[in-house]
Amino acid sequence: MKAYKKLVEKYERIHHLSHMQSIVYWDQQSMMPKGSSDARAKAMAEFGVILHEASVDKEIALLLDDAMGENLNSIEKASLYEMKKTYTNNTLLPSSLVKAQSLAHSRCNHIWMEQRKNNNWKAFQPSLEEVIKLSREEASIRSEISGLSAYDSLLDLYEPGMKSETLDDIFADVKTWLPQLIQNIVEKQKSQTIIKPQGIFEIQAQKELGIKVMNHLGFDFNKGRIDISAHPFCGGVPEDVRLTTRYDEKDFVQSLMGTIHETGHASYEQNLPQDLLALPVGQARSMGIHESQSLFFEMQMGRSAEFLKSIHPYIIESFGKSEALELDNLVKIYSKVEPSLIRVDADEVTYASHVILRYEIERALINGQIETSDIPDMWNEKMQEALGLNTKGNYKDGCMQDVHWSEGLFGYFPSYTLGAMYAAQQFNTVKKIHPNIKESIANGNLMETKLWLKENIWNKASIYSTDELITKATGETLNPKYFKAHLENKYLL
Amino acid sequence: MKAYKKLVEKYERIHHLSHMQSIVYWDQQSMMPKGSSDARAKAMAEFGVILHEASVDKEIALLLDDAMGENLNSIEKASLYEMKKTYTNNTLLPSSLVKAQSLAHSRCNHIWMEQRKNNNWKAFQPSLEEVIKLSREEASIRSEISGLSAYDSLLDLYEPGMKSETLDDIFADVKTWLPQLIQNIVEKQKSQTIIKPQGIFEIQAQKELGIKVMNHLGFDFNKGRIDISAHPFCGGVPEDVRLTTRYDEKDFVQSLMGTIHETGHASYEQNLPQDLLALPVGQARSMGIHESQSLFFEMQMGRSAEFLKSIHPYIIESFGKSEALELDNLVKIYSKVEPSLIRVDADEVTYASHVILRYEIERALINGQIETSDIPDMWNEKMQEALGLNTKGNYKDGCMQDVHWSEGLFGYFPSYTLGAMYAAQQFNTVKKIHPNIKESIANGNLMETKLWLKENIWNKASIYSTDELITKATGETLNPKYFKAHLENKYLL
Repeated sequence: MKAYKKLVEKYERIHHLSHMQSIVYWDQQSMMPKGSSDARAKAMAEFGVILHEASVDKEIALLLDDAMGENLNSIEKASLYEMKKTYTNNTLLPSSLVKAQSLAHSRCNHIWMEQRKNNNWKAFQPSLEEVIKLSREEASIRSEISGLSAYDSLLDLYEPGMKSETLDDIFADVKTWLPQLIQNIVEKQKSQTIIKPQGIFEIQAQKELGIKVMNHLGFDFNKGRIDISAHPFCGGVPEDVRLTTRYDEKDFVQSLMGTIHETGHASYEQNLPQDLLALPVGQARSMGIHESQSLFFEMQMGRSAEFLKSIHPYIIESFGKSEALELDNLVKIYSKVEPSLIRVDADEVTYASHVILRYEIERALINGQIETSDIPDMWNEKMQEALGLNTKGNYKDGCMQDVHWSEGLFGYFPSYTLGAMYAAQQFNTVKKIHPNIKESIANGNLMETKLWLKENIWNKASIYSTDELITKATGETLNPKYFKAHLENKYLL
Repeated sequence: MKAYKKLVEKYERIHHLSHMQSIVYWDQQSMMPKGSSDARAKAMAEFGVILHEASVDKEIALLLDDAMGENLNSIEKASLYEMKKTYTNNTLLPSSLVKAQSLAHSRCNHIWMEQRKNNNWKAFQPSLEEVIKLSREEASIRSEISGLSAYDSLLDLYEPGMKSETLDDIFADVKTWLPQLIQNIVEKQKSQTIIKPQGIFEIQAQKELGIKVMNHLGFDFNKGRIDISAHPFCGGVPEDVRLTTRYDEKDFVQSLMGTIHETGHASYEQNLPQDLLALPVGQARSMGIHESQSLFFEMQMGRSAEFLKSIHPYIIESFGKSEALELDNLVKIYSKVEPSLIRVDADEVTYASHVILRYEIERALINGQIETSDIPDMWNEKMQEALGLNTKGNYKDGCMQDVHWSEGLFGYFPSYTLGAMYAAQQFNTVKKIHPNIKESIANGNLMETKLWLKENIWNKASIYSTDELITKATGETLNPKYFKAHLENKYLL
C-alpha cells in the first residue's frame, strides 16, 4: 500500500490547492469589484500553472503503476481507478493543443458575447470553426486511447461510461412521444388563468425567504453560504459550499426556484463521504448525476404542489397575502408549459427538446458529418420539428444562445436531460419505498427523501460506475420511462 | 539588465501568488462559515509552502548578485536593494527555527486566548517563555548578519532603519511632558458634559454611513470593498483592498472612527505606484508609515471638529437629529481623554504611554536584561508611573491584554507611536503649505490634503528610506515636537 498511500498524499495536496482556486473563483464571481479583474486574472493564471503541474506530476504515473500490484480493498480499488482516469484525462493532450484551445475558447467566448448582441452569425462563425477544429483534434486523440468514437470520447468526460448509442435510443424514444405530449399539455393549460405576482419584492425579504427554504431543505450553513452573482452557480468546496443566486425586485419566483435548484447541487457536495473528499473517487459521479440532484430538488420536489404547500407559509410571511400568492396560483405558475426559444428559460417538458437538438448537432459536428456553416439551418429545421418555432435569421435566440460550444464544451448538453431522467427514476424509487412520501413532503418532512438520497447517491460519490450506482439505488439502469411517467402524471392527470 | 528583469519576473510571480493568499485570508476572516475552518487551515498551510518556496528560491540569490553589476536607474537600484533586504529577511533563519516558532506561536496564542479569560498568568508564562526564547534566538541570528543589536534587528523588520537609540531619545523626551499633559487635559475636560448617544443605530444605516464617509475620503470602491470581521483590518491586495469593520447596534461612534482609520491604511495601499506594485520597492515603506496614514485620517483629520463638521450631515441623515448627535457633543466624544488600562481603547494622548511601556519591557526581554517572570511587576510599576493605574494581579487588563508577544511580534509596538508622530509632522507640513487647510476640510474639500499625501507618501512606496521619505516630505527627519504640539493645540487651547 506504499504507492497508494503516496497517491493519496498527492491528491490531498491537489485538493488543498483546488480549495484556494475555488474560493478565489467564487470571490471573483460574487464579491470582487470590477476594477480588480486584471490583477485577479493574472493571479488565477499563475496559480493555474501550479495546479496544472500538480495534476500532471509524472510521479503520479509511476505510483499508479506501482499501486496496481498492491493489496487494496474495494474502495481503494475504485479510488485507484478514478485516479487513473483523472490522471489520463489530464495528461492525454499535448500542451500545444491545450494552449491553442485555451486561446481559441477565450477568443470565441469574447466574440460570442459581442456578436450575439448583434445577431451576427457570420462574424461569429470563423472563431467557432476554430474551436470545433480543435475539439475534433482533442476527440481524435482521446478516442485513440479510449477506443471510443470521437464524440463519445468527449461525452465520457462529463458522463463516464455513457455512449451515444445509448443516447440515440433514449432520445429517439423521447422524440416519438414528446411533441404530442407538449401539445396535449399546452392544450390542457389553455383554460388556466394565472395571476402574475406584481410588485416590489424587496431583495432583503427574498434573501431571507431563500435562507428559510435552504434551511428547510437541509443546507448546512455551518459549511456554506449563499450570495449574489450574475450567473448563479454552486461553487466553493464540499467543506464550504458557496451557492449564488440573483434577485429581481419585480419577480421572486425565478430566484426562489433557482435557489432550490442550486441547493440540490449543494446537498450532494455537502454530503459526499467525508473521508474521501480529497480523492477523485470522493467526488460527484458525473455531471448528469449532479444535475439529477438539482432537478430532484427542483422538478421532483420543488415545483410540486406538495412542496410548495410546505413552504407557502414562508412566502406569505415574506411578502404578505395576495391573490397571486395563493397556493393554487403558485402551483400553476411553477407548472406552466410553453414552447419557447431559449433553453435556460424552458420548463422541464420542453427542455428535453432543446437538449436533443443540441446533442444531434454537436455529435454530427464532432464526428465530422456536418460543418460549422450547417448549424443555423439545422437548428431552425430541428426547432420547427420539435417545438414548431422558427429561428431563421434569429441567431441570438437560436444557435448563438448558449456559451457552451464557444468554450469547447461538446458532450456536456446531454447531462441536463440525463439528470432529469435520473431524478425521475430516483424519485420513483423513493415513492415505492415510502408510499406516503408526497404527504410527508407536504407536511414539511423531508427526512425520508433526504436519507434515501444520502445513502444511495450522495454518500456513494464515485465509488461505483453510474450504471452500478443507479442499479443499486433503483434496481435497474437508466430507464427513461420514469421521466415520461413523471411528465404525464404531473401535467396531464 | 538581464538579471534584474528576471528578478522582476520572480517577484511578479510571488505577487500573483500572494494575491491568492490575501483574498483567501480575507475570506477566512470575513466570509467563511465556522465549520470550514479545518479544511481552510489545511489549504492555507499547503499554499503557504508554495509561497515560501517561491520567496526563498535559490535562483533569486544568484540573480541578486548578477544584478548588482548591471546598469540600473535610481528606482531600479532602490528596487534591487529592497529585493535583497526582503530576500535576506526571508532566508536568514534556519527552517528548524521557523518551524519551532510557528508551533510555539500558535500554541502560545491558543493558551493566551484561554488563560487571558481566566486571568491566569502562571498558566500562560511557560508558553510565552518559549516564544521569547525563540525570538531571542532569531534576534541573535539576525543581529549577527545586520550588525544591529539584538532588539534592533527585530525592530528593523517593521521599521527598517529605526534604532532603539533613537527611540530611547524620543520616548525619554515624551516621558518628560506626557504625564503632566494628561493631567492637564483630564483636569480641563472635567467640566465638560458629554451626552452619550443612546439607542439602536441600525446596522444597515451604519453601513451606509460608513460607505458615504469612505467615498468622502476617496476610497475607490471600484478596487476594493468593506465587509464585517471580528477584528477589523485592512487586507486584500493594493489592486483590490478589502477593509473590514464591525458594528454595534448600541454605538456607532467607534465603528465609524474605525472605518476612517482603516480607510487611511486603504488609501495608502490603493495609491501605491501602479507600475511597482509587484515589487518589494512598491510596497508600503514601514509599519510606522502605514500607521501614520491611518492616524493621519483618524487623529489629524477624522476626530477634528472640522472634519466632523463635514460629515455631520451624513450622521444626521443616517440616525436623525438628537442632542447627543449635535456636532459639539460629537466633537467632545471624539476628543475625550482618560487614562485606562487597555491600549486598543485608549485615546491618542494616553496611547503613547501604553506603547512606551511595552517598548521598554520588550527591549529588555529581547536584550536579555529581564526574564519573562519579571513582566507583571514591571508592567504594574510602569503603569503606575505613566498613568497612575494599578494592574497588580490584574493580568488580563495588564500584561496579558495584547496578542503581539504570543505571536512573537517583538519590535512591532513602537510603530504605533512612530505612526502618530509621523502623522502629526505630515499634517503640520500640509498646514504650512495650505494655511487654510482646516477650512477646506470643514467644507468637505480634501483635495489638497490627499494630493499632498499621494505625492509625498503614497506614490513613493519604498523608493526612499524612511528618513529620506520624511525629509523630502516635511523638510526634516522625524521630529516628535509636532506630535507634542498637536496634542497641546488640540486638547489645551
